[in-house]
Amino acid sequence: MEKFFNRRKKNRKYIERAQNVRDLIKKTTEKNGGHLASNLGVVELSIALHEVFDSSRDRIVFDVSHQCYAHKILTDRRDRFSTLRQTGGISGFTSPRESPHDVFFCGHAGTALSSASGIAVARDQLHQDYHVIAVLGDASLTNGLTFEALNNIGKTRLIVVLNDNGYAIARNVGFIAHYLNGIMRSNIYNRIKGFFEYGLRKLPLGHSFIHLLSRVKRMIKAFLLPSSLFECYGLRYIGPIDGHNVMDLVDALNFCKREKRSVFLHIKTKKGYGDPDAENSPEKAHGIAFDRQFSNGYSQIFGQTLCDLAEKNPRIVAITAAMARGTGLGLFQQKFPERFFDVGIAEGHAITFAAGLAKAGLLPVCAIYSTFLQRAFDNIFHDIALQNLPIIIAIDRAGLCPQDGPTHHGLFDIAFLRSIPNLIIMQPKDGDELRKMLEAAIHFHGPCCIRYPRNARGPMDGHCAAIELGRSEIIQRGKDICLIALGGMVFVAVAVAKKLPHRSITVINARFAKPLDEVMFAACARDHKKIYILEDHVQMGGFGSAVAEFFVQKHIAVDLHIFAWPNCFIPHASNDEDLEKMFHLTADDIATSIASDLGEEK
Amino acid sequence: MEKFFNRRKKNRKYIERAQNVRDLIKKTTEKNGGHLASNLGVVELSIALHEVFDSSRDRIVFDVSHQCYAHKILTDRRDRFSTLRQTGGISGFTSPRESPHDVFFCGHAGTALSSASGIAVARDQLHQDYHVIAVLGDASLTNGLTFEALNNIGKTRLIVVLNDNGYAIARNVGFIAHYLNGIMRSNIYNRIKGFFEYGLRKLPLGHSFIHLLSRVKRMIKAFLLPSSLFECYGLRYIGPIDGHNVMDLVDALNFCKREKRSVFLHIKTKKGYGDPDAENSPEKAHGIAFDRQFSNGYSQIFGQTLCDLAEKNPRIVAITAAMARGTGLGLFQQKFPERFFDVGIAEGHAITFAAGLAKAGLLPVCAIYSTFLQRAFDNIFHDIALQNLPIIIAIDRAGLCPQDGPTHHGLFDIAFLRSIPNLIIMQPKDGDELRKMLEAAIHFHGPCCIRYPRNARGPMDGHCAAIELGRSEIIQRGKDICLIALGGMVFVAVAVAKKLPHRSITVINARFAKPLDEVMFAACARDHKKIYILEDHVQMGGFGSAVAEFFVQKHIAVDLHIFAWPNCFIPHASNDEDLEKMFHLTADDIATSIASDLGEEK
Repeated sequence: MEKFFNRRKKNRKYIERAQNVRDLIKKTTEKNGGHLASNLGVVELSIALHEVFDSSRDRIVFDVSHQCYAHKILTDRRDRFSTLRQTGGISGFTSPRESPHDVFFCGHAGTALSSASGIAVARDQLHQDYHVIAVLGDASLTNGLTFEALNNIGKTRLIVVLNDNGYAIARNVGFIAHYLNGIMRSNIYNRIKGFFEYGLRKLPLGHSFIHLLSRVKRMIKAFLLPSSLFECYGLRYIGPIDGHNVMDLVDALNFCKREKRSVFLHIKTKKGYGDPDAENSPEKAHGIAFDRQFSNGYSQIFGQTLCDLAEKNPRIVAITAAMARGTGLGLFQQKFPERFFDVGIAEGHAITFAAGLAKAGLLPVCAIYSTFLQRAFDNIFHDIALQNLPIIIAIDRAGLCPQDGPTHHGLFDIAFLRSIPNLIIMQPKDGDELRKMLEAAIHFHGPCCIRYPRNARGPMDGHCAAIELGRSEIIQRGKDICLIALGGMVFVAVAVAKKLPHRSITVINARFAKPLDEVMFAACARDHKKIYILEDHVQMGGFGSAVAEFFVQKHIAVDLHIFAWPNCFIPHASNDEDLEKMFHLTADDIATSIASDLGEEK
Repeated sequence: MEKFFNRRKKNRKYIERAQNVRDLIKKTTEKNGGHLASNLGVVELSIALHEVFDSSRDRIVFDVSHQCYAHKILTDRRDRFSTLRQTGGISGFTSPRESPHDVFFCGHAGTALSSASGIAVARDQLHQDYHVIAVLGDASLTNGLTFEALNNIGKTRLIVVLNDNGYAIARNVGFIAHYLNGIMRSNIYNRIKGFFEYGLRKLPLGHSFIHLLSRVKRMIKAFLLPSSLFECYGLRYIGPIDGHNVMDLVDALNFCKREKRSVFLHIKTKKGYGDPDAENSPEKAHGIAFDRQFSNGYSQIFGQTLCDLAEKNPRIVAITAAMARGTGLGLFQQKFPERFFDVGIAEGHAITFAAGLAKAGLLPVCAIYSTFLQRAFDNIFHDIALQNLPIIIAIDRAGLCPQDGPTHHGLFDIAFLRSIPNLIIMQPKDGDELRKMLEAAIHFHGPCCIRYPRNARGPMDGHCAAIELGRSEIIQRGKDICLIALGGMVFVAVAVAKKLPHRSITVINARFAKPLDEVMFAACARDHKKIYILEDHVQMGGFGSAVAEFFVQKHIAVDLHIFAWPNCFIPHASNDEDLEKMFHLTADDIATSIASDLGEEK
């Protein structure tokens, strides 16, 4: 009886603590943006994890890790939590630099099982003794890496917690979701199962009898349920249990802690739990910052243009990897549900699937964020470019994602895509040009990437000549120096030119990172004493590097300077401007740098 | 009775045809090399596929496609089959350029389900009517892409044939293999299942009764077997059936052809079937060409060195993705079975798993072929480089894989890796240098790639200064021109220098593609009138491009010329020499080109 009252008391304490954490998350994300709904969903889980495990010793690996806010508050970052995602503040993802309680710095889904199993194996090899817990969302099960890891978990001891909220970022897709829902719905099974899981353990039964009973259990389960996927991989499956009841979670996690083999604990949560707004529109509340300045975004222009093109061309189909809303494909999905494919967090499949679609006569347009496209590098190389298939890859968020930081900045795509044969790479300076590039890409009859950041700097009126393959556009003509800019940096180039009124400056909108407008660039080198490249990409292997390579190969003597991001992982910050200032890439900085370069020369 | 005799007659015809095809495969691979064992294993399947389907209309997508020899012989390439893998001859992989019966040009495992589902969806959208068949090996189930595709097969109609020979390239690893074996062993289940699959269909039963029976079936299955993985994904599972009995295969495929939903046909074959040698040593016979000149190979030196280092350093562990033998890790596996991990064809997991191992205190060395490392690009970026973890990536086959062709040449790795922050990239000129680079890499305390091709050109006696981070090595000093070579191209540079005896030539062994030896290169530019780069990589974004970028950024005026592979997909050929001649990259070609360059200048 005393035990009962103790539990009730404890439970009240947990509920209080959860409310407290939840309030802080809500208050902070309202101000700073961030992943509200997914974090509200795991408050109880985070409390339970820290109740059962010691994160200074045990290793809790969060998949994607955007659901780490409660974990941060519960460990050593409550005081700094108001600086979340701000310049110099704490990261929106786990970060070992920030705290010993964070294991990995990560932001891409599907890696946790793989990296956690590495930690577990190393622990065993080094004869150490701690627990390794991988916390996955159900969306991670749409990603192939999770299955590569599942297949290799083998004999090590790992605790896998599946935080199943039935959503990836958009509503979850594919058979895994269907399968998990099947488990959910079966209440009879849950009751029978409860008896087998907990009840039987207390009876004094022999091992072989337990073994037989577990077969009987499996039989009953198979009768009631789709068979258990995770047991195919040799994990002990436990669940589903209520992910908003800390007491139950603590019990289950303690059970997992004692278990000698790897366990798969399936918990059911509600995205946005505790906030009626977030609960009702969890996709919208997934990333609050996503919606700011949305009307100024390229994604919307992309989505609208694709709808217009699709009206006229029935061969156009659209593919996204769990980013329908983020990439602006929401409208397309509504208008052409049969021609829209959300494949889950499976960027590799998105591209190879598109290869199949193109092979059989359709015209696929894949919209994927720059940083996530990294996961489909080989698919672009091997399944698209090698077959020279007509596929358009819309590379969204190719530029800064300031509040998310190094796992999300899209500053590397030209470098990794440029050497792939047959591939065309374009970048529009503004929304109008994006529209024209999309229309043009359809007629290139080969693989074509269009990269663009979240926000357009433009529009630039009066400038948008028709798109021709490998041809740049002259924005203004001058005689002294030439600024060749890619994408939105054209606006910066124009601003720089205005800041140097005593110089006669040519500004070129490069449009193509591949193929380069070699004729124009050679003429620029001939007619100007200096060329400056402006690009929204890392310097190493980027657009400027391609231009340098071209000049050197053609033995064109030229004084070239590249303004680009340095080759390091750019940190997170409150906004683009802070980072541009930090790395001296504002129009003011560039103008000053050019002036000094020209001044020294005199 | 007549039917029975007809079947027997037909069966004899099939057996004859199989023998005929098998003889041609054996004869040809003995001469030309190639994937012997896997092709011998699918002769009967190929005959059955072409018996049931019309490959000029239906689309048969082979995963990896190195098992396409019988398919090629049975379609339109019997006459040309003797040219297999030879210069100007037919490819060792399916190739749409070669024949309309080939759907995709591919050579990486795990893509078939993804691309085939794309074709099937396009077929439905375009209201066409043909069959799409994806033929996978069991090794494809170790690859995440297959699961991303499985999760999305949805409502389209696709026939998946799993050719289960229990081997990936090495003996299959992980729980999927265990799971498939579980199905195999259960004979009772197979008999009960046969009744449910075929017997019940003939009885006049109502739909709901059939539904109930299928639940009963599932129940029995669950009692006897690990539950069916594939049914979780909504596929109808059929099998396992004998993959060397054409009659049975034809029956099963006809059954699949009539089925209204996607089916998963599990067939059991023996790798190397019909050839006692290949059957007994299927891994060895996997790729016959792999073993030629093995003693001159870098892989063996790598394997031996790693064993030596591992003796002294217990923190060293080795990881491979289904390429233990190919990467020379066989010896390590024998000597340190507990410290060796073959994760299957799961390059992404190999790298992220290594990240976990490193995080928890071990020193992982991952050996992966250059072309397959493309599949782990994001893992290297996000899980290794971002955490700056001490991991050594041994990039084997970084150079030509002449007989395999464009899906296997390792000519792109510098281009896609170079822009990743924190990453070091080295290439040794010979085996001795590889050994020293491995020893040195352990002390770099960060992620480090060492790329090398299959065969060493050396050894080069008397030249192997200690390895210092970012420092090159002077091979010979001259005054006129400077040749900067990376890797084995140092030998070509020395040969070129000998062919131009009237010139005073400096030869530099670059050693590092990143970081560059900037001090040395700047001095070279100052002291010579021309610099020539020699590298075994595509020109765009490669080592030469990096050097060009450096000179331009530092405003060092220099006359630079790059000898590298052009930016296209290099075809297959009988040997390295044929391709070097084809693309003018022999020592003779380079010497002639330099002489003409210098001559014109005078």
